[in-house]
Amino acid sequence: MPDTLPPDSVGIVESKSMHFDKPLQLECGKTLPEYDIAYETYGELNDSGSNAILICHALSGDQHAAGYHSMEDRKPGWWESSIGPGKPIDTRRFFVVSMNNLGGCKGSSGPNTKRPGTDKYWGPDFPIVTVKDWVNSQQRLMQVLGIEHWLAIIGGSLGGMQVMQWSIDYPDAIRHAIVIAASPKLTAQNIAFNEVARQAIMSDPDFNHGHYLEKNTIPRRGLMLARMLGHITYLSDDSMREKFGRELREGKLNFGFDVEFQVESYLRYQGHTFVERFDANTYLLMTKTLDYFDPARDHGDDLATALSSATANFMVISFTSDWRFSPQRSREIVKALIKAKKQVSYVEVEAQHGHDAFLMPIPHYMNVFHNYMQNVSGEIE
Amino acid sequence: MPDTLPPDSVGIVESKSMHFDKPLQLECGKTLPEYDIAYETYGELNDSGSNAILICHALSGDQHAAGYHSMEDRKPGWWESSIGPGKPIDTRRFFVVSMNNLGGCKGSSGPNTKRPGTDKYWGPDFPIVTVKDWVNSQQRLMQVLGIEHWLAIIGGSLGGMQVMQWSIDYPDAIRHAIVIAASPKLTAQNIAFNEVARQAIMSDPDFNHGHYLEKNTIPRRGLMLARMLGHITYLSDDSMREKFGRELREGKLNFGFDVEFQVESYLRYQGHTFVERFDANTYLLMTKTLDYFDPARDHGDDLATALSSATANFMVISFTSDWRFSPQRSREIVKALIKAKKQVSYVEVEAQHGHDAFLMPIPHYMNVFHNYMQNVSGEIE
Repeated sequence: MPDTLPPDSVGIVESKSMHFDKPLQLECGKTLPEYDIAYETYGELNDSGSNAILICHALSGDQHAAGYHSMEDRKPGWWESSIGPGKPIDTRRFFVVSMNNLGGCKGSSGPNTKRPGTDKYWGPDFPIVTVKDWVNSQQRLMQVLGIEHWLAIIGGSLGGMQVMQWSIDYPDAIRHAIVIAASPKLTAQNIAFNEVARQAIMSDPDFNHGHYLEKNTIPRRGLMLARMLGHITYLSDDSMREKFGRELREGKLNFGFDVEFQVESYLRYQGHTFVERFDANTYLLMTKTLDYFDPARDHGDDLATALSSATANFMVISFTSDWRFSPQRSREIVKALIKAKKQVSYVEVEAQHGHDAFLMPIPHYMNVFHNYMQNVSGEIE
Repeated sequence: MPDTLPPDSVGIVESKSMHFDKPLQLECGKTLPEYDIAYETYGELNDSGSNAILICHALSGDQHAAGYHSMEDRKPGWWESSIGPGKPIDTRRFFVVSMNNLGGCKGSSGPNTKRPGTDKYWGPDFPIVTVKDWVNSQQRLMQVLGIEHWLAIIGGSLGGMQVMQWSIDYPDAIRHAIVIAASPKLTAQNIAFNEVARQAIMSDPDFNHGHYLEKNTIPRRGLMLARMLGHITYLSDDSMREKFGRELREGKLNFGFDVEFQVESYLRYQGHTFVERFDANTYLLMTKTLDYFDPARDHGDDLATALSSATANFMVISFTSDWRFSPQRSREIVKALIKAKKQVSYVEVEAQHGHDAFLMPIPHYMNVFHNYMQNVSGEIE
């Protein structure tokens, strides 16, 4: 708990909720009759409405991207490194909107909320939503907030995928598309990791076919395993070596199955804390959303064709040690954009931190990001 | 089932068992009062005893390295690609010994065998054995078989670690040390993957603290998850792309959690079949053996010093797309050997197959391996 909040933080923020009663047609064929979206905003929308920025979150993110919910809050929002006064996404200049995506577990309609008109949790019956569905729901929130276009949409990882989808589906509504540590689609290896995570959750006896909330249980073991596995793929081999090496917790081998190496201790801790704050059905949904994302699919598997409708200026950033969504994947996006004759800048940041780098205040990254956003802010009317 | 056995197979083989009643002191401080070792042999030991070769198996391997157990056998031994008449490990020239390591589950004493003098399974009480312990038990088998020295000891992955340990602990007993797709020690990332696998098994309610055999259960879900995860790390991103890509099993998205992508189907199959043939406690033990291996630890973390006692000629082979034990790890072994002024050849094979490459008949690999073994066979007296 900070005694006083850091001066470069947006400070105390609150989550708001918006109810939508216009049905939302989903890609899977189902319709959400009504739903809620939880969101936060930082900064002020200017009179011309020309300084609005949308932040899109990744797998385990939510609407709380920056600031603190109270003075007692131990941790700030997940992208505190990049959002705030004087930071790349400078809240003195921009009006920032961040929402919890549909299917999430932090206030937006999802498996851990009640099904409209009933007293039952959606649970496993919440439909599988796609990046396209999210973009549609984000576009509706935009309208309600009175925003006509986004000066920029920004996201890392699964968030970057939403940015790409926006640029394709609502080209007139987005001026700058900032795609960080993302991929045009998951590889077989990515899908394989997601599948192991899903199997871990679904095979947990406490999963109860997804109806665990009604049974007052949580698939704790499965969700913990999923998170532990996820964490390995967020870090690089090098960063794990630097962080943990082969350090033994008690300085010696114990010849037993309790925690021995520091890395084991770290992973178990990550797994345990995640269970307290995340919903297993949401985890399943989000991994499927990731697996399904493939905007080229409907365009003869040609990403350049898929992106042909885009009019935004693109900024693509990748990190050298990211093996979950490697620089090669970002370069595929860049190549497709060039082929489609779009405006694109690309920076490959030398960083040891693996996929997690996109959340970290790495100087080169912050510099590049800051400079780009400075230029963007020059377009505020 | 082959109607006739392939001419380059060793043909029908049988597993034998040897009982040892001289206690074996283990690194953990415990002692095995007596134990059995299951093993197979291929080819004939010559009169001078100068053509003996020891094969060391990896995590999920066993004594059945080549040939078929019966005409009805659907699959040959795990290293059929390299062992047999005319193959790199040519059974017309060499006498090949392959054993199931202590703690294994294919006939050697381990968690799924009865504790001597009791009617109870060892289960979780089987001590954690190290690579050093294995080498000691292999050395005893060698003596009983009347072999004075090994012309070569050969192993891939965890098998390669045993080869290194032999060269350090029994330098006079090994003339050629062939270390394939191995590592001088696990990285934090390697340990992390092992830890997730262990947690998957140990958190399975059917694990029953390791006493599942007495309770007539199997930690099926946990072992399946461990194997699925393992498989991802055995394959390369590229080989998965080539093998599965983003192919959908039914040609379309189903918006559900059943198998959709081919890679999911493959992984689930691998997981299911593994449960039928492998013991969960053995899996736990073997991953610990891997985590613990670090011959440099007792030598001021200097691998060259650890290897200073070795007198063998070394052949080290790695595979470009192997990210579990990458070429970088093999080069660390090679550098240490050079620093220690040992004889060493090193080949980095261009291969897309990831860690699994060491089991495959990749032409460049087979050529290199074959040529080296031809030279080795020239030393038969």
